[in-house]
Amino acid sequence: MKLYHYWRSSCSWRVRWVLAIKGIPYESLPVNLLGKENLDPQYVTKNPSGFVPCLEIDGRAYGESLAIIEFIEELYPEPAILPSDPINKMIVRQLAYTIACGTQPLQNLVAQNYYSQDKEKREEYARHWISAGLSVYERLAERYSNRKFTWGDSVTLADICLIPQVYNARRFGVQLENFPISLAIYENCIKLAHCESAAPHNQPGAVGPNLA
Amino acid sequence: MKLYHYWRSSCSWRVRWVLAIKGIPYESLPVNLLGKENLDPQYVTKNPSGFVPCLEIDGRAYGESLAIIEFIEELYPEPAILPSDPINKMIVRQLAYTIACGTQPLQNLVAQNYYSQDKEKREEYARHWISAGLSVYERLAERYSNRKFTWGDSVTLADICLIPQVYNARRFGVQLENFPISLAIYENCIKLAHCESAAPHNQPGAVGPNLA
Repeated sequence: MKLYHYWRSSCSWRVRWVLAIKGIPYESLPVNLLGKENLDPQYVTKNPSGFVPCLEIDGRAYGESLAIIEFIEELYPEPAILPSDPINKMIVRQLAYTIACGTQPLQNLVAQNYYSQDKEKREEYARHWISAGLSVYERLAERYSNRKFTWGDSVTLADICLIPQVYNARRFGVQLENFPISLAIYENCIKLAHCESAAPHNQPGAVGPNLA
Repeated sequence: MKLYHYWRSSCSWRVRWVLAIKGIPYESLPVNLLGKENLDPQYVTKNPSGFVPCLEIDGRAYGESLAIIEFIEELYPEPAILPSDPINKMIVRQLAYTIACGTQPLQNLVAQNYYSQDKEKREEYARHWISAGLSVYERLAERYSNRKFTWGDSVTLADICLIPQVYNARRFGVQLENFPISLAIYENCIKLAHCESAAPHNQPGAVGPNLA
């Protein structure tokens, strides 16, 4: 497996984390978003969205982090990141999609840049959508979480979406004290070796401080 | 099963369509978004996002259309809307998430309203994100589609996300001739009885012309 990814991309972190949990070796291929390497025709031919991450197997490329993660989960079921019971699986996916559909796409770099040319307005915009998404997540976490993980006693797809989003929230100055359960889950998970090893500040090309 | 939904909501259409494909009876509970019934505290207690659809089973409520659909697919596997092969399943999910993560959230009513108070600007914004999403979908469809369905010879989760998005694209005046494969898939699928029966203009409370 080859993984095209970017150190700061929250969706890349999701996939790196799952690969680390399951102990799957992969070839790491950094794509520099700031250098617009993701818009290079060769990359866009692989992944027409121009987003990272992108998984390559036998010369064929596949995009969308959650599609990649579900594939990895099916091929390497242990340790599981989805519960086996259908209702519980629906709950974990609802939590994951609260971030992956309802939050991350609205605050990403492309959406920010379309919204405004002004850096402060862009950051206010990112804070708005991250806060809105985390508000929903927090109310679901009240229902389901033990304050260490979002669901159950180990990392699930929900945490895998949440932690990179909280990291981004910090970066943009979101008031995280409004989301105490999400923050407690973050503080528990960020210390786990497989999460940390996949985190932005531990990737090749990473610059700036460790925000964890 | 009880389904909270709104006639015009593209995410509601996805779930109604899957229930129709599998022939599953359900109690239909319309939530009028224009009347802000989705912001009613009783509804938000069920589904903290305030979005539709929301599935209720034994008094417990679950949101996020794709989480609901994956649950239905697991409980009622026939006719299947996901391929059995893991690589093909990843492809279908990539296509589905290109709409469900990469397109729909950016063009929905809540995002439009945050973007601008001005109706024309809001519609231009919706057209921008729908066109951007469909451009990606079209390039993936070039790779995989027989121009009747996005993948394979029957409806999959990819079509289930695509068709309601193309319907919305029409509503906002997106130039669909730029997306000939997506449009051909739309024109094939919209005629299918299970798609049509789940379409907005066939729901209780629907107003205005049939845009199909």
